[in-house]
Amino acid sequence: MKDRYLDFVNSPFGTSIARSLGLPRPEVLRRHRADHAEFGGMAAIGAGPSPALFDELMAVLSAIGMTGIAHESASGWLPVAARHGAMSGRFEPRARDASASDRVEALIFDATGINESAQLHSLYAFFHDALRSLAKNGRIVVIGRPPATRANAPAATAQHALEGMVRSLGKEARNGITSNLLRVADGADIESALRFFLSPRSAYVSGQVVSIDAPAAAPESWATPLAGKRALVTGAARGIGASIAAVLAERGAIVTGLDVDAARDALDQTMLAIEDASPSAGAHAALVADIAAPEAAAEIAAALAASGGVDIVVHNAGITRDKTIARMTGEMWDSVIDINLLAQERIDDVLLARNVLRANGRIVAVSSISGIAGNRGQTNYATSKAGVIGRVHAMAPLLRERGVTINAVAPGFIETHMTARMPFGVREAGRRLNSMGQGGLPVDVAETVAWLASPGSAGITGNVVRVCGQSLIGA
Amino acid sequence: MKDRYLDFVNSPFGTSIARSLGLPRPEVLRRHRADHAEFGGMAAIGAGPSPALFDELMAVLSAIGMTGIAHESASGWLPVAARHGAMSGRFEPRARDASASDRVEALIFDATGINESAQLHSLYAFFHDALRSLAKNGRIVVIGRPPATRANAPAATAQHALEGMVRSLGKEARNGITSNLLRVADGADIESALRFFLSPRSAYVSGQVVSIDAPAAAPESWATPLAGKRALVTGAARGIGASIAAVLAERGAIVTGLDVDAARDALDQTMLAIEDASPSAGAHAALVADIAAPEAAAEIAAALAASGGVDIVVHNAGITRDKTIARMTGEMWDSVIDINLLAQERIDDVLLARNVLRANGRIVAVSSISGIAGNRGQTNYATSKAGVIGRVHAMAPLLRERGVTINAVAPGFIETHMTARMPFGVREAGRRLNSMGQGGLPVDVAETVAWLASPGSAGITGNVVRVCGQSLIGA
Repeated sequence: MKDRYLDFVNSPFGTSIARSLGLPRPEVLRRHRADHAEFGGMAAIGAGPSPALFDELMAVLSAIGMTGIAHESASGWLPVAARHGAMSGRFEPRARDASASDRVEALIFDATGINESAQLHSLYAFFHDALRSLAKNGRIVVIGRPPATRANAPAATAQHALEGMVRSLGKEARNGITSNLLRVADGADIESALRFFLSPRSAYVSGQVVSIDAPAAAPESWATPLAGKRALVTGAARGIGASIAAVLAERGAIVTGLDVDAARDALDQTMLAIEDASPSAGAHAALVADIAAPEAAAEIAAALAASGGVDIVVHNAGITRDKTIARMTGEMWDSVIDINLLAQERIDDVLLARNVLRANGRIVAVSSISGIAGNRGQTNYATSKAGVIGRVHAMAPLLRERGVTINAVAPGFIETHMTARMPFGVREAGRRLNSMGQGGLPVDVAETVAWLASPGSAGITGNVVRVCGQSLIGA
Repeated sequence: MKDRYLDFVNSPFGTSIARSLGLPRPEVLRRHRADHAEFGGMAAIGAGPSPALFDELMAVLSAIGMTGIAHESASGWLPVAARHGAMSGRFEPRARDASASDRVEALIFDATGINESAQLHSLYAFFHDALRSLAKNGRIVVIGRPPATRANAPAATAQHALEGMVRSLGKEARNGITSNLLRVADGADIESALRFFLSPRSAYVSGQVVSIDAPAAAPESWATPLAGKRALVTGAARGIGASIAAVLAERGAIVTGLDVDAARDALDQTMLAIEDASPSAGAHAALVADIAAPEAAAEIAAALAASGGVDIVVHNAGITRDKTIARMTGEMWDSVIDINLLAQERIDDVLLARNVLRANGRIVAVSSISGIAGNRGQTNYATSKAGVIGRVHAMAPLLRERGVTINAVAPGFIETHMTARMPFGVREAGRRLNSMGQGGLPVDVAETVAWLASPGSAGITGNVVRVCGQSLIGA
């Protein structure tokens, strides 16, 4: 589905019309392109007292080819910055329409040392000076600590307070800028998350809080971190599932795409297209199975075991059967709960019991904003998707000893054939009621899944990451 | 501020206009009135397998004078219902406009025994039949278990899934109907929460999930559960704070209302009005102090200690200093963080250190939807209010040994002099973007505070309860 409003207001003619009428003009989001450098330009860096992750942060910026500029508001650690060869400077609050030439691509703030709420002033000082220097499609990343790991209540309070700051900045910044908070436990690795949130790959992920609580080994290649990994993607024939399969393959994984018999042709086409584009051609596979069937889990496990097991399981298959509850049939309820939730349980149970999911495996389940906020006409769907979130919370601690992580992504309004069928008003509301002023694309969900599935994300488990452009809607 | 649209569409003339134009017609919410019975009529009761809290539920219904009707979909426990003298019956899905004469006032579902997601069908069966039988201003309460307390992942998953059901029902039901989920740990008491959520006192509280994890003693009187308790309310001169002071007094507490010197006259008038209406006349007090002053906490503690201590502390005082961050001054940042967050820390620290807050005390802090979702132009305010939530999470476990609970209320759009000054468009959006189709009143926040402050709520701590009419806005 084309977003014609977005296209129009960003055309030369439409821009002037929109400006003269005072219409909102959502930014065309910059997404990853193989022919464009993923990173570059300057990142302004701020910090509170005793920023614990400054060294790691500078090392990542150096590795990805961004230039770190230490902000003078954080005067206490300028010597550390100098040791790393970082420039330092100050950003005067600038006019909204100042020239774009000296903009920075990212604002990164190390808040790990903030132990009382008076110290939150350091965030104000940095973002007050620097926010208007941030380029379109820029990135805001605040790095804090999990509140529950802090030594006392004032420190936990201040760390939790960062949520309000990060989410407000996302709502203020607009212009395709994302704003996210990483809660990093002592000893956990930030590189995988930093690379994702600084990249165009996270174009539609904003207002999120991600916890990282364990170390991770770096992959051999950050370009193809999934090389040598085998992945299963359910519901892979079309839409978000097809995009997940394609992105996992692009990142190096060998993908088994699964869908029902009725989607066999579309599935074959999707997997053929992936073969054509893929460095591991010949290896990808289409698997036809109905995950609602009782025997499906065992069949899937057998198919995956035959090629030596699986490293990445993406539970994407899902259905909607929308009706208000008084008009909903029992079959509509049961089928949605079964396919969206029970099938995930059945498949994982078999894969885990038979050790088909290998050590250091990754499970990523697709939930939904409806699972967080509920939705009119979707009691069945919202219940199933809330269950997916509950399952991620419940399973994460149980899977730690295997090195397996489990996380959920919760898409907001994503442009698919499902949303194209919505009534105009509902579709427009869904597109505009978020900080990006537009719907996301299937690839936005897929990139988020690929990030969570990567070896560098070993420390990220039990999280729910919304891919919603910071939708207004929540709970 | 009058909500003229709400008044108009509920006038005889306006009703017909709204109907012919297809305009939304928000229900006039039924709130508590001293001259009306708080409870009455029929409650339809559904259940999944092995409903653990059925006996307690029936006992509460009996105590408050509601008639429980066991729904036949829960056939396994009809003998138990019969033992309690409950009628049983079935509710056919009915036409939307059927007569109002046989409606029920509440739908209550005991989901405590649900241990796998296939069993969620029992919720479908009950609400499919019964939702349209629920009267205007009716109540939906689902009773489950805290997911983390379940024996295995499928049970935790199914318990979490209830969130999606309860929130979707709230969005479907409209007509002033609220829908909430109680997560009750083994051995915890449900009466205080059930009474609140079944009462008109919870008119603007919907879509909430409340955890109850410990037993509680019943108060001597449920009408005046705060009799003999001493309460401090900050920011009591006007608006929400004045309403909190009034409701706590109506419920039997002796209230010290605190505000700054500039609000002295308004504070005196508020406390005089409370004196006039109050059963414990002569006891209430006005206390003028500036909580931003470093010495204020000690002064407040001394004043409260002089009358023997305090049982209930309500941190309501708060300010806004809205600007986008580039235009915000450092003073605007600091003053909001100081008054909205640091002052709560300073006051509680002294009250706890000097044992001025007595055993079994209650702390209730006022947060905000902005603290959950962030807000444009409110980086300072949202950060402070997110900090309030972080503080509740951090302090709750620390205060358990004293029997002290700490909870937050997070108001959404509440009609006050602050919202009356908003631009028309912002105000209308705030009023309509929730399941009630209208703003709340200060008394809605006050009733929620009084419930959390009552002896019966001893098992409720570490919760954040939104008073927002199930606002669409969240995170």
